Amino acid sequence: MAKEKKQVKAITSMEDDFAQWYTDICLKAELVEYSSVKGFLIIRPYGYAIWENMVDIMDGMFKKTGHQNVAMPLLMPESLLRKEGELVNGFAPEVAWVTMGGSEELEERMAVRPTSETLFCDHWSRVLQSYKQLPMLYNQWCSVVRWEKTTRPFLRSREFWWQEGHTIHETAEEAIAETEQQLNCYADFCRDALAMPVLKGRKTDKEKFAGAEATYTIEAMMKDGKALQSGTSHFFGDKFSRAYDVTFTGRDNRLQYPFQTSWGSSTRLIGAVIMTHSDNNGLVLPPAIAPIQVVVIPVAMHKEGVLDAARSLQQRIDALGIRTKLDDSDQSNGWKYAEYEMKGVPLRVEIGPKDMEKGQCVIARRDTGEKYFVPLEELEAKVQELLKAVHDNLYNAAAERLNTRIYPCQTVEEIREAAQEKHGFAKSMWCGNEACEVAMKELAGVSSRCLPLEQEKLGDVCPVCGKPADKMIVWGIAY
Amino acid sequence: MAKEKKQVKAITSMEDDFAQWYTDICLKAELVEYSSVKGFLIIRPYGYAIWENMVDIMDGMFKKTGHQNVAMPLLMPESLLRKEGELVNGFAPEVAWVTMGGSEELEERMAVRPTSETLFCDHWSRVLQSYKQLPMLYNQWCSVVRWEKTTRPFLRSREFWWQEGHTIHETAEEAIAETEQQLNCYADFCRDALAMPVLKGRKTDKEKFAGAEATYTIEAMMKDGKALQSGTSHFFGDKFSRAYDVTFTGRDNRLQYPFQTSWGSSTRLIGAVIMTHSDNNGLVLPPAIAPIQVVVIPVAMHKEGVLDAARSLQQRIDALGIRTKLDDSDQSNGWKYAEYEMKGVPLRVEIGPKDMEKGQCVIARRDTGEKYFVPLEELEAKVQELLKAVHDNLYNAAAERLNTRIYPCQTVEEIREAAQEKHGFAKSMWCGNEACEVAMKELAGVSSRCLPLEQEKLGDVCPVCGKPADKMIVWGIAY
Repeated sequence: MAKEKKQVKAITSMEDDFAQWYTDICLKAELVEYSSVKGFLIIRPYGYAIWENMVDIMDGMFKKTGHQNVAMPLLMPESLLRKEGELVNGFAPEVAWVTMGGSEELEERMAVRPTSETLFCDHWSRVLQSYKQLPMLYNQWCSVVRWEKTTRPFLRSREFWWQEGHTIHETAEEAIAETEQQLNCYADFCRDALAMPVLKGRKTDKEKFAGAEATYTIEAMMKDGKALQSGTSHFFGDKFSRAYDVTFTGRDNRLQYPFQTSWGSSTRLIGAVIMTHSDNNGLVLPPAIAPIQVVVIPVAMHKEGVLDAARSLQQRIDALGIRTKLDDSDQSNGWKYAEYEMKGVPLRVEIGPKDMEKGQCVIARRDTGEKYFVPLEELEAKVQELLKAVHDNLYNAAAERLNTRIYPCQTVEEIREAAQEKHGFAKSMWCGNEACEVAMKELAGVSSRCLPLEQEKLGDVCPVCGKPADKMIVWGIAY
Repeated sequence: MAKEKKQVKAITSMEDDFAQWYTDICLKAELVEYSSVKGFLIIRPYGYAIWENMVDIMDGMFKKTGHQNVAMPLLMPESLLRKEGELVNGFAPEVAWVTMGGSEELEERMAVRPTSETLFCDHWSRVLQSYKQLPMLYNQWCSVVRWEKTTRPFLRSREFWWQEGHTIHETAEEAIAETEQQLNCYADFCRDALAMPVLKGRKTDKEKFAGAEATYTIEAMMKDGKALQSGTSHFFGDKFSRAYDVTFTGRDNRLQYPFQTSWGSSTRLIGAVIMTHSDNNGLVLPPAIAPIQVVVIPVAMHKEGVLDAARSLQQRIDALGIRTKLDDSDQSNGWKYAEYEMKGVPLRVEIGPKDMEKGQCVIARRDTGEKYFVPLEELEAKVQELLKAVHDNLYNAAAERLNTRIYPCQTVEEIREAAQEKHGFAKSMWCGNEACEVAMKELAGVSSRCLPLEQEKLGDVCPVCGKPADKMIVWGIAY
């Protein structure tokens, strides 16, 4: 009674059912598995290796600008969370509560960390003394829990993995500069590591983080034209400092409240990568985060010398510091090609007896499917050239989409059409009134994504109320 | 109303009060802070940087032997935990329970992960199909929660950070080999990264992990002669596989149960490092895990050229791939010396006007206090030589202690004396009877640490019951 043999199967095409296509990739590329814990995810080795590559790169960027990692408690007493009213109101509906420790009922229930502003503030209230200690630039890599009703792999689940940066500064100006620096850091990371262009902007008051004075965001456009918020950076002013009594002795020898920021990005970015680059053959990964950047496949492996030749290629590529794998398993070539296509490996190198005779190997690109016959002595140069080409091609295709599918609109109907029929974003003027923002959801089925940092003047009036409008805003259907 | 100025203060001496000395170092070296969440710890940047260095090294070792990282859910339903009776009985008294999600009472309460055997088994029960997929060699870096009554930084707290390796294998032999390999991995890590020798052995049935067939351990001896269990590796047989219905189609085409291991080490190792190497001036860190390996201090910084000279030294050391810091703050030299002593920085490099005239710098060792006048052209060679010397000296001192303070004993009184008066471990024969093990706690105040892998014949009878005994066991007072 053998179990069914594992096979690489075709996936739903994105044209037929984008949501199913997405789920198929998550499962068939072995990124995740649904756990038997409802709404919780298991990140499998291949998916986790992608996340590890993202973490390595981002962590290096954070450290270069002076940030240090710390670990804060997983649980926090309700009273601590309640000190800042807006924050708790924002998160309370989705907090998981611990009420028992061992066999004892707790006197006060404790929240499983949904975000850690309160813990950082509480810590700073005890350790901060002088302006000389500022800025404090902290970051934490951890998972957080939010009790979501409906969940989807990477995009929305009851637990997700993220980093949360938390900083305090002597002045508001410095804190604002930090907020902007980290927003740019996210955008640079998306461009250079994920080959994903983003739109940088500020959230409206309605969409900003609970308790923040200002929330900045990067918004990416998925292949279906929907928006994915991919990272946020918040400026809190001194509001939390006051709520948690975080003070320091300033240069003038008086007690002052520091100014605070926080910023976060998460495993959601894996979802962003999938929906930005992948196709109907499976996952497509930008080289910088691919767990395997080049797979080497010996063709007609049983023929003399083939395996050795393949191994030699693999070692030469490995010596470049490129993550590479030799697949010398007894699966068929067809199975292997499909498998590494599904897993989004950027380059496949093949070598067989005929190639050996000709002193060449074959390199196939995952993104375009193009094949190159490469003289063996040119292997290193060609692999490096092609990895760069894959990155650039992925970036350019995504940038082309983002650039051509943000439609300037004058009317509510045009906005509806841009999002619902042309499958893109809409940009329009906006009066700044929340009522108009809410109405847009009703009338066009879109939410505000951001007020782009690069503003344009598209007109003079708000498409909803017709009143004077001097802000350009971007609308879209969001994940 | 300025806050009190931060100062480096003397700490309790370890001879006066070892426990207070330990706590003083944890706090004054800024490794941790007590959070306002009772029993939970905050790991501050300096402490977390030590942990990051440990993680980097261990993670590299795990990956070299084919292990892959994954992420499992933080919460697990009670029914899942209950499938394996011994495990749940072992952990139930110290589980934190989530009973509410948002404003809704959960139908079934969920445990905050105390350890993840159940989740791995549950996952494998769905993804494992064929022997071709074996072994599955997984690891997870995360924090776990155990509702401890009394807590101490790093040694025992309600949350701690660790790695938990979980593997399944086709045969029992392979799983046992994995258990041993990972035990050796821990011992090698302790020797090479922590400069800490350990005793390798097997736990008695009384002391083994809930549900394990065999638990192996590494035990280190702290400066006060107490034992610190520093890593464990478990062989489960196919017990959990059967409980969670994990099966695969074997080479004979029949359904079989895989054999399983798990192995863990934690932030406890930071406590081990403190109590193995530190002294009355503060923390002493082995170079491999020190966040700052060499600190450079300009002496008479205002004098022309001094700061440039110091910066040049720092750059040259940095170019060797050594973690280095230049302290050009306006604190006094005395403050700086005390600060980096407290923080356990292995080497301090000083340069002042007189040194510049002589074309030299001064290097001071944290471990011995020795000072070296080093010609500038010999800087690189000397720094590398001294970092190695610091590691070796720390290791040798700890090895000397472990080697000379395990006392061979024939009687219960000798065992009591070895632990209580000579502040070391006792080794004796043991009949294998749990009653004698329990009695030893009563009679000598010690617990069994392990049955060392390297056995010796110290006699023929058990010191407690006088019956024939063919096992050598090590006793001690444990953290």
